[in-house]
Amino acid sequence: MVGGGPGAGIAETHRTAMRLDDRYAIIAGVFSRDPEKSLIAAKKLRIPEERVYSDYVAMAEAESGRKDNRIDAVVIVTQTASHYEIARKFLGIGINIICDKPLCLKLAEAKELKSLVDKGGLIFCLTHNYSGYAMVRHAARMVRNGDLGKVKVVQAEHASGWAIKLLEREGHPQAAWRTDPGVLGDASVLYDLGTHAHQLSRFVTGLEVTEVAAEMNQIVENRAIKDNANLLLRFSNGARGSLWASMAAAGNEHGLRIRVYGDRGSLAWHHEDPHHLLYCPVDGPPQILAQGAEWLSPDAQRWTRVGLGHPEGFFEAFANLYTEVADAILAKSESKTWVKADLGFPDVTDGVRGVSFVESAMRSYAAGGAWTQVESI
Amino acid sequence: MVGGGPGAGIAETHRTAMRLDDRYAIIAGVFSRDPEKSLIAAKKLRIPEERVYSDYVAMAEAESGRKDNRIDAVVIVTQTASHYEIARKFLGIGINIICDKPLCLKLAEAKELKSLVDKGGLIFCLTHNYSGYAMVRHAARMVRNGDLGKVKVVQAEHASGWAIKLLEREGHPQAAWRTDPGVLGDASVLYDLGTHAHQLSRFVTGLEVTEVAAEMNQIVENRAIKDNANLLLRFSNGARGSLWASMAAAGNEHGLRIRVYGDRGSLAWHHEDPHHLLYCPVDGPPQILAQGAEWLSPDAQRWTRVGLGHPEGFFEAFANLYTEVADAILAKSESKTWVKADLGFPDVTDGVRGVSFVESAMRSYAAGGAWTQVESI
Amino acid sequence: MVGGGPGAGIAETHRTAMRLDDRYAIIAGVFSRDPEKSLIAAKKLRIPEERVYSDYVAMAEAESGRKDNRIDAVVIVTQTASHYEIARKFLGIGINIICDKPLCLKLAEAKELKSLVDKGGLIFCLTHNYSGYAMVRHAARMVRNGDLGKVKVVQAEHASGWAIKLLEREGHPQAAWRTDPGVLGDASVLYDLGTHAHQLSRFVTGLEVTEVAAEMNQIVENRAIKDNANLLLRFSNGARGSLWASMAAAGNEHGLRIRVYGDRGSLAWHHEDPHHLLYCPVDGPPQILAQGAEWLSPDAQRWTRVGLGHPEGFFEAFANLYTEVADAILAKSESKTWVKADLGFPDVTDGVRGVSFVESAMRSYAAGGAWTQVESI
Amino acid sequence: MVGGGPGAGIAETHRTAMRLDDRYAIIAGVFSRDPEKSLIAAKKLRIPEERVYSDYVAMAEAESGRKDNRIDAVVIVTQTASHYEIARKFLGIGINIICDKPLCLKLAEAKELKSLVDKGGLIFCLTHNYSGYAMVRHAARMVRNGDLGKVKVVQAEHASGWAIKLLEREGHPQAAWRTDPGVLGDASVLYDLGTHAHQLSRFVTGLEVTEVAAEMNQIVENRAIKDNANLLLRFSNGARGSLWASMAAAGNEHGLRIRVYGDRGSLAWHHEDPHHLLYCPVDGPPQILAQGAEWLSPDAQRWTRVGLGHPEGFFEAFANLYTEVADAILAKSESKTWVKADLGFPDVTDGVRGVSFVESAMRSYAAGGAWTQVESI
Repeated sequence: MVGGGPGAGIAETHRTAMRLDDRYAIIAGVFSRDPEKSLIAAKKLRIPEERVYSDYVAMAEAESGRKDNRIDAVVIVTQTASHYEIARKFLGIGINIICDKPLCLKLAEAKELKSLVDKGGLIFCLTHNYSGYAMVRHAARMVRNGDLGKVKVVQAEHASGWAIKLLEREGHPQAAWRTDPGVLGDASVLYDLGTHAHQLSRFVTGLEVTEVAAEMNQIVENRAIKDNANLLLRFSNGARGSLWASMAAAGNEHGLRIRVYGDRGSLAWHHEDPHHLLYCPVDGPPQILAQGAEWLSPDAQRWTRVGLGHPEGFFEAFANLYTEVADAILAKSESKTWVKADLGFPDVTDGVRGVSFVESAMRSYAAGGAWTQVESI
Repeated sequence: MVGGGPGAGIAETHRTAMRLDDRYAIIAGVFSRDPEKSLIAAKKLRIPEERVYSDYVAMAEAESGRKDNRIDAVVIVTQTASHYEIARKFLGIGINIICDKPLCLKLAEAKELKSLVDKGGLIFCLTHNYSGYAMVRHAARMVRNGDLGKVKVVQAEHASGWAIKLLEREGHPQAAWRTDPGVLGDASVLYDLGTHAHQLSRFVTGLEVTEVAAEMNQIVENRAIKDNANLLLRFSNGARGSLWASMAAAGNEHGLRIRVYGDRGSLAWHHEDPHHLLYCPVDGPPQILAQGAEWLSPDAQRWTRVGLGHPEGFFEAFANLYTEVADAILAKSESKTWVKADLGFPDVTDGVRGVSFVESAMRSYAAGGAWTQVESI
Repeated sequence: MVGGGPGAGIAETHRTAMRLDDRYAIIAGVFSRDPEKSLIAAKKLRIPEERVYSDYVAMAEAESGRKDNRIDAVVIVTQTASHYEIARKFLGIGINIICDKPLCLKLAEAKELKSLVDKGGLIFCLTHNYSGYAMVRHAARMVRNGDLGKVKVVQAEHASGWAIKLLEREGHPQAAWRTDPGVLGDASVLYDLGTHAHQLSRFVTGLEVTEVAAEMNQIVENRAIKDNANLLLRFSNGARGSLWASMAAAGNEHGLRIRVYGDRGSLAWHHEDPHHLLYCPVDGPPQILAQGAEWLSPDAQRWTRVGLGHPEGFFEAFANLYTEVADAILAKSESKTWVKADLGFPDVTDGVRGVSFVESAMRSYAAGGAWTQVESI
Repeated sequence: MVGGGPGAGIAETHRTAMRLDDRYAIIAGVFSRDPEKSLIAAKKLRIPEERVYSDYVAMAEAESGRKDNRIDAVVIVTQTASHYEIARKFLGIGINIICDKPLCLKLAEAKELKSLVDKGGLIFCLTHNYSGYAMVRHAARMVRNGDLGKVKVVQAEHASGWAIKLLEREGHPQAAWRTDPGVLGDASVLYDLGTHAHQLSRFVTGLEVTEVAAEMNQIVENRAIKDNANLLLRFSNGARGSLWASMAAAGNEHGLRIRVYGDRGSLAWHHEDPHHLLYCPVDGPPQILAQGAEWLSPDAQRWTRVGLGHPEGFFEAFANLYTEVADAILAKSESKTWVKADLGFPDVTDGVRGVSFVESAMRSYAAGGAWTQVESI
């Protein structure tokens, strides 16, 4: 693990997700730029001092040189700005990666990472965790099966209410970082939340966003950045849609939600109730599909640990990705080859597309909301 | 009443709404261009033959000449294309009007009607019935009271699923008319449904839409027109929003829904559950406001006939407008003057703005979705 | 109409329901025991003085003696205690009746009324209005069709929150009457609300309640009566269930709700969302059935005035009963005979069973909650 | 761990719950009566052979004799029938216990276990996992805080639909066991599900059930036992309520739900949406309390790992209990004393009360549903 020292919120989620299905052990890492803090974190994780490194370069080189008990993959949970250089280093010496999202902050860098992954035949998981939910998998399968007919309209939202107050002035570290014009600037709400809605749209529909018109504004006055974005989307098959990303939608919880309308039916899912999916076929009443029900696809059943009426949540969805990666790593180590599963974990390509999407949206916004092409990869 | 002969769906709603609070009697009319059909309708309504007219011109002239038992207002429920000429005639001779929406099909005509209304000091109600719901009134009052702080984002939808099949090929009269390129063309979905979402947004927020970017597409292939529209909006106070109008959102019921986000709270209402309003203040838990609850505003209480837990629906909301107009007519006839109530029934100005909105959206669409100004009235 | 003078709440609902479908005119009545108040009410309803009577006896005799423009039915909306004598008088001279519920307060009297109805071949509607909802009709039809298999469990509630405060001490007239130990006493909550849940259970399932075990307690301290009742039920086919009636369930709206479980599926309906029905078949996902959907039974479609997504509420359900009675009166007057429609309006038998149910429950409660037979009629 | 070999469903949940917060290691056990199977399970869990025992007696004796790396607690996940003897053995030699529910099958045995726990000052957690949910904790705190006033009515349900088919004839092992008249008989539905609803009622309200009237029936015909139970309850403060336990409520998911009504407000929680709580105060609108919201009690915040809108589910609730037990074990080992936290994990007393409750309900049922006292402990 690189990153994840004291105070690093998302790293703890990664570690919980690793433990859930008991497929991982953290055996080496750099947990902080501050060696002392790094050692503290390592001790808490029961990692021997000899495998706590001063920086990611040292770690990559030492670990790649090991004969036995070598790491199978590195987990990158640093701030986004450093993902590129760290990932490049590990990819360069052939180590699989599990990387927090978004991938990085520049399309050129994203593409370089993808090229390294492809060249090395490596496993790269980008933890767009929401695509790990059983019912999201089922939704994606239903679209692939044609249950909705041809997809025509996609309404996606990741409109959270978490930053409706000026938390950045109250010593809230995440808020400070996410509203800092010098870090992500106005693009913050798109990188942080918009990429989830974007990836979810792509994952569920199997379509790509080809053009975007973006409008941004500010909900919380005196904030240093725009905290709200309303986008229109054009998809690769001609479908249309809208995407709303916000960090200050008053009273919303996490606010991730997707509705897909085809000419034969529609689907709706939202993260506040992740174990249900509303399916409206054209020729019958709306149906409530519940995680664990016997009539779900294998895609959903595979990621149902308990059963009907036993809610699995955020950690379980995250763990689903980790366990899929573990399977992939094992498959690759056994057979020297590895084929990515259909509807499996998000990867470096999702990362490239996410960065491309944000860059295009920011260009559109800079151009007064004009329709702007999203570069196809 | 002008219009509303055999087969005219919305006219029956108007008549039911009139009866509900027992404030109206239909005493004269032209119910069809076909005199025979007109008489049949009149007989069913127990209207004496002498007050059934051959056309609206004859009616306007005869009725305006009556000494006693003169009509207090005319209800126009013909197809939209004829609203302008009929309304102009009755306004010209000083008769109050209750007119089905949309007002008409050209902005210039709409403005002329408004000018006649203003000049004559007449009462003109445009039956944007959804603003008649008690909880919509309450929402509008809460925004006026500042309960949401400054409005920042508006998400409006009127995405119905009624035309997800090619009903126009199955002899469905309403579908035939509404998908006829020669009647409303691609603007149909905006005139029919979009204007409701637009008016509701304005009514609840008290803001005007100043710019629009419009995107249209087709959900049902082989339909003669576009049946879906995704719009971005800019509001008069700088707020942003989106509006989705559709006649073919598979599985949706009526699909009218509005969410308003301010910097101090948010509100959500949808027509499938009209007697509740979700209110999320910034400083406390989300609240479910229910029609009939003791803590609602007089605006909501006034239009609650029974009480908490006794659903009132579409007819009651429609009747609310009719009863407000009856009050206005009485007030005017008694005092020769009349002041429109705050948060009262929609009027000719709402009609002008609706036509202006659709025209602007269609210009935007013709210009590839470019941001387009909505003329301020 | 007998009853319904100034301040009489439910009478206004009856009159609104009559107007809704334009099938009734009120042409005679006694609106109050106080002749002056009666005349005031009559004037407001535009009823000529000559047909406003001093009491129901005078009315019954005068109206039955009329040659033309005779009343077709009398609507009884007095307090429950007087239903029996008034109904007996009108039935005795062959006049159809629409009577507010509950029927009366003694089983012997209820049976006598039923016997008069049967002997005279008269139409008697008891306005258990909730069985007028389109989706309740559909639920009843589904059970009759066997969609649930054999009914096994019924969970019914009419647990309202209206009297969670000591309103009877604040000059609230309805509360005063309903919590008066001298009027209905502890049975009040069962007569007022319990009979609705009981009738709804019977209407939807087609079963009779044969035994009851009743427990009562008091939610609002210092109230003169028990305001809460929890019952267990045994049904005629061996099904079991529970029924909860309350006037002081804090925070509940009207609180009428029914769930029916069979061995092939289940149904759930609640009055706060009357246009939907949740249907769970054993062999597929739960379905949301919506009023106006094309796949509903004729029973539901008949009582859908507008269509999908256009909520109809309390008045419309009430009006459905009135319109059914109008059809029945016409059919009877034309053919001298009349057959009650399947799944049609509730009648005197429902009234007898309701009184029998309450009496049995009160006996059970008096016996410390022992299982008590409900007399079969 | 005792139990939890191949095919043992609930043991896997226990193990996942242990891993989630990384506070446990399984270091010894008897995983099956079949030594071979036991070794297979042990190997999978990476437990050295030397600490895999032939039976629980051997384990208890060997482990209690160890000088170092001794187990801190034993987890009992065998079938209910053997809980008593196993627990007695471990308690007898002073080992803390985490035991799956229900505690055992006889009240006398349950009391003996409690007496051993009390005498030894041992930690005994009975995994009534639903009381581990953050929002259930918050509900319990609100009642303690008086937010509902005096509790008057409790409506509890654990009506699952899992066994609506004759799964026991299709080789479904859990169904076979749970519908075997020789194992739990008609009491199965009460032991398996009823005790959860009972414990939840007690946990949330702080009241005890003092009397019960029980009615049972059979939903799935040809099943060897009754699969449905409807109960009325009397609580220690005079409150009344009902409890519905079912394994065959068609279409229900897990079906655990509780509603508590006091004279100042009400609360509702259901397991299908565990991160929300509906709170209806008497003096304001209903509120939706969401896990992670800033205004929740420390009891809820303590068990919120991520935050608002990030669902935590079944495993997390289970893990909460485990982590509380870990804290208790540490506290006890450090200070030689230990005080059970307020609103903490369920313990042996809950177990005794659960067994007493089921025994009383079965006696009531045998007596035709007569009110029956629940022995106070």
